[in-house]
Amino acid sequence: MNEEQLHAMRHSLAHITAAAVKRLWPEAKFGVGPVVENGFYYDIDLGDNKISEQQFGKIEKTMHRIIAEAQDFERSTKPIDQAIAWAKENNQPYKEELLNDLKRSGTTVAKDLDADELGTITEGDAAINEVSFYTNGDFTDLCRGPHVATTKEVGAFKLLKIAGAYWRGNEKNAQMQRLYGVAFATQEELDTYIENLEQAKLRDHRKIGKELGLYTSSPLVGAGLPLFTPHGTVLRDIMTQYSNQLRQRHGFEKVWTPHITKKELYEASGHWAKFGDELFLVTSQETSDEFALKPMNCPHHTQIFASKPRSYRDMPVRFLETTTDYRDEKTGELGGLNRVRSLTQDDSHVFARPDQIEQEINNLLAAASELYSSIDMKLRVRLSYRDGSDAYLGEIDLWNTAQEQLKNAVIANKLDFYEEDGEAAFYGPKIDFMATDAIGREHQVATVQLDFVQPARFGLEYTDTEGNAQTPVMIHCALLGSVERFLSVFIEHTAGWFPFWVAPEQVRILTINDTVADYVKEIEAVLTDVVLMKPVKYNEIRFTRDDRNESLGKKIREATTLKIPVQLIVGSQDKEAQQVSVRTQAGEEKIALDQLSTYLQDL
Amino acid sequence: MNEEQLHAMRHSLAHITAAAVKRLWPEAKFGVGPVVENGFYYDIDLGDNKISEQQFGKIEKTMHRIIAEAQDFERSTKPIDQAIAWAKENNQPYKEELLNDLKRSGTTVAKDLDADELGTITEGDAAINEVSFYTNGDFTDLCRGPHVATTKEVGAFKLLKIAGAYWRGNEKNAQMQRLYGVAFATQEELDTYIENLEQAKLRDHRKIGKELGLYTSSPLVGAGLPLFTPHGTVLRDIMTQYSNQLRQRHGFEKVWTPHITKKELYEASGHWAKFGDELFLVTSQETSDEFALKPMNCPHHTQIFASKPRSYRDMPVRFLETTTDYRDEKTGELGGLNRVRSLTQDDSHVFARPDQIEQEINNLLAAASELYSSIDMKLRVRLSYRDGSDAYLGEIDLWNTAQEQLKNAVIANKLDFYEEDGEAAFYGPKIDFMATDAIGREHQVATVQLDFVQPARFGLEYTDTEGNAQTPVMIHCALLGSVERFLSVFIEHTAGWFPFWVAPEQVRILTINDTVADYVKEIEAVLTDVVLMKPVKYNEIRFTRDDRNESLGKKIREATTLKIPVQLIVGSQDKEAQQVSVRTQAGEEKIALDQLSTYLQDL
Repeated sequence: MNEEQLHAMRHSLAHITAAAVKRLWPEAKFGVGPVVENGFYYDIDLGDNKISEQQFGKIEKTMHRIIAEAQDFERSTKPIDQAIAWAKENNQPYKEELLNDLKRSGTTVAKDLDADELGTITEGDAAINEVSFYTNGDFTDLCRGPHVATTKEVGAFKLLKIAGAYWRGNEKNAQMQRLYGVAFATQEELDTYIENLEQAKLRDHRKIGKELGLYTSSPLVGAGLPLFTPHGTVLRDIMTQYSNQLRQRHGFEKVWTPHITKKELYEASGHWAKFGDELFLVTSQETSDEFALKPMNCPHHTQIFASKPRSYRDMPVRFLETTTDYRDEKTGELGGLNRVRSLTQDDSHVFARPDQIEQEINNLLAAASELYSSIDMKLRVRLSYRDGSDAYLGEIDLWNTAQEQLKNAVIANKLDFYEEDGEAAFYGPKIDFMATDAIGREHQVATVQLDFVQPARFGLEYTDTEGNAQTPVMIHCALLGSVERFLSVFIEHTAGWFPFWVAPEQVRILTINDTVADYVKEIEAVLTDVVLMKPVKYNEIRFTRDDRNESLGKKIREATTLKIPVQLIVGSQDKEAQQVSVRTQAGEEKIALDQLSTYLQDL
Repeated sequence: MNEEQLHAMRHSLAHITAAAVKRLWPEAKFGVGPVVENGFYYDIDLGDNKISEQQFGKIEKTMHRIIAEAQDFERSTKPIDQAIAWAKENNQPYKEELLNDLKRSGTTVAKDLDADELGTITEGDAAINEVSFYTNGDFTDLCRGPHVATTKEVGAFKLLKIAGAYWRGNEKNAQMQRLYGVAFATQEELDTYIENLEQAKLRDHRKIGKELGLYTSSPLVGAGLPLFTPHGTVLRDIMTQYSNQLRQRHGFEKVWTPHITKKELYEASGHWAKFGDELFLVTSQETSDEFALKPMNCPHHTQIFASKPRSYRDMPVRFLETTTDYRDEKTGELGGLNRVRSLTQDDSHVFARPDQIEQEINNLLAAASELYSSIDMKLRVRLSYRDGSDAYLGEIDLWNTAQEQLKNAVIANKLDFYEEDGEAAFYGPKIDFMATDAIGREHQVATVQLDFVQPARFGLEYTDTEGNAQTPVMIHCALLGSVERFLSVFIEHTAGWFPFWVAPEQVRILTINDTVADYVKEIEAVLTDVVLMKPVKYNEIRFTRDDRNESLGKKIREATTLKIPVQLIVGSQDKEAQQVSVRTQAGEEKIALDQLSTYLQDL
């Protein structure tokens, strides 16, 4: 089924929903009923009568009856004044208001409402002459269409939720009830969607973050400024270590820059003119200095590049810095980790000769591919090119060869990709990475971005083989992107069951009774010596011991609630046999103590 | 020689300096001539005649003549009006001004001038009656004394520098010349001091920082906000890793907190009232939120402690965070790394039961001792206790047992220590660490500080064995202190010849000719596998290769200028013998390739 068919189907379901509501509550007055992502809604005014989720069954039953009746969707038209009279007769004041607005000016209406909700037939810029209606059974609605042929052809649907909504989104207007449904071509798709929705609720990183104690917030510190507990900090550290190690392998070197800067730096880079009002401003009480909290790190890195002369032999110069940037997000937009004011970037910048672009992109793509495949997320990339407009800065030849090099690198890395003209930044083409999570949602994660503008603005240069000054190209790249946002995705992707190597608490020893204290020490000695080398190097085992005088059942329940991937159960028999019972999500098995290290390294 | 004798000696030398200047330039007018650290100065007005360093020899010669004359220092007194008449007669307008001021009010003068420069004899709060003078040979000076008996008893001295100085520190006044000298009881002490001074100049971390390319600054970023290059970042990283590993061994866990906070956090902690005007203020342009850049991390850490219930069994809770704080230092005070606006702390906080203080302090002292001994710095600690005043908060019993526990821990760690009453913070006793560098200078580095106040202000608690809520004690500790300041000390202590394990570039392979390319690869393979485990774990070798077509001499010179501790010189004979010539500060020796790894690990 193509997008248009799906759209018609969902829109027809909005009509069927309204028809069902009208059968059940004939006094219902209707607003608009557009198609939205994965479904549709209809705004309904039932006066003091409130629809509850308990009534969804009744409404769905009536909808199924209408569907079973296989009613035709019939289109008709009326001159605008007759349409207004129709709305009045049928006691539909919202439709009447829409039609009156439409009569005055088609465009005004279109501004605050989805155009396809209106029965307008605009003819060029001329005045509105006629409006169209669609009728199925005894229900008629002002509508531009198109619809499916009969009510039978609407696939699988489910009413999802009911919420308050002001008429036309204005809180001065009447409050209506917005009844949402989801709809797909097949029952199977619907089931998957509903299941994923349930899954998404269970996987909500705010919920899991609290259950596993990964981060906290404090009203004294402020919204969007999460504080990471020891367990959450392990996640941050291991993932950024991984990201860093992947790039250090390709010659990236760590640098360090402060979090504030004089605004002159961003004036020089051009960011101040573009984003100056989105920055946090910092004032000195001791001097007249004015600073900004840095929202990105590239201008700082240009200053390190510029701190000594560079020759063609030194190129590329590759800097890496995991550092926290600050963006002045509105408080209402802040929730959990996906939108924060303190966002830590695993940032990096390459200063390269133009002939080195492809190799550098290659390295970065290999690093991104390795990272996301090791956490079982499929990557897809978008190549964003310039279009023919004059919105871009930099030599056209440089653009063309660079775009070609990007594509070559993507193909060489066997990445699933698509290309889009006109999506490049004004300063260079880029590659955006989309990662698909365990329940099928796609998230934008890493980016690799070329920059033909900033090096020139900061007067960066290197001397070529002839001793002439040349301007390098800059490549911006973050593999995780914002660490906080990455973690929100990662927590939901894994539902908190992190891969063994990154789990904050990897192993917990659970004693069956207190006769094994010595043996537990032996086990701890083994665990202390285990250092994982894949995928992150020098990753020591994080383990604890639960030797409380509690039942094993209780100990297992607690460890499982905390999603500790490996539970080592130890009783006197294990001690005698010099083994441990290893309990993981896959089940339980006995492992000899002298095999434990190898077992854990292979997990 | 005690401090008072040394003071009298240096002050007598100030008089002898003035006497010598007067012999050479009889028109000289004198300001004041106080004792300063390690010596003295005298402010002199010679009109348009400027003393240069070239004339120091002549002045010193005259001083030695005066010394050889063994003149007595004779005290006399004059009524204040006679003293003023004396100054007028002798054409000493600065002395005249001082005496006139003194006549009006002794205290006004004392405010802007070192009191012992003045010949005042104040009798209680009564009016000035008489002033005292000291005469040696034909030179008489207004002076309170005391002095040595004769000019012979002045030890060893040297004139050090001449600098401009406004009369009474006010730039509206006449500019005088300030002639500095250094003086010690013995020639040996003076020689050591002069040598250390020369050493200190050579070791200046700003000079070495530039030579080794460790950090840079940018006027676009601002003063006191250094940017660290890859080499400087290695120093930061290895030292903070070391500091962290030393504490992680004792159960410290890393946490992460943002760099800004609502000022409410510091209002709650009490810092706002005390230091509110020393903070950088942050304003949101999107909301009305007001933030501060954090100047310390303890209040943030209390919020993580408070994020879940804690029982006596969970105590102590130990947090560790290497994070950057911001302090609004005046621009004039900023230079190099010892005073910066962005200071990174290797901070940590223990939340402990009162009975756990000693053990925790013990652990921290052991960590500090290990760290400083591994960089060859001798530690001395000061125990700062409360005195009998009521300037302190917290239970007196808690103070007494805590002070005892601090001392026990210091003794258990065999640390050189001294105790001072009245030097504690109002919220608890502390231990300050002083480290002595290679040229004998003492620097304040780490601190361990008890805090009986903040936990209560934030309502922190844990439940005791009976289920009752108790307030924990907080222990603040940073081993390096400010990483930037530590590095300034470390660079000067080592003169840039860092210990092998922390050197930014540890090894450079220098080829004698281009016949050894394959063998260099073999050597690189060996180096890639070397991972140092002491004193910092998982410390991979940082090496480079110089295979340019340049002379070996030039390659060695460059590597030595960069203070690379290990240079591996490789020629075809080495290839044949499967060895390398290892060049270090200790000399050159041949090492078999299969011994290289062990050799480096033992360095």
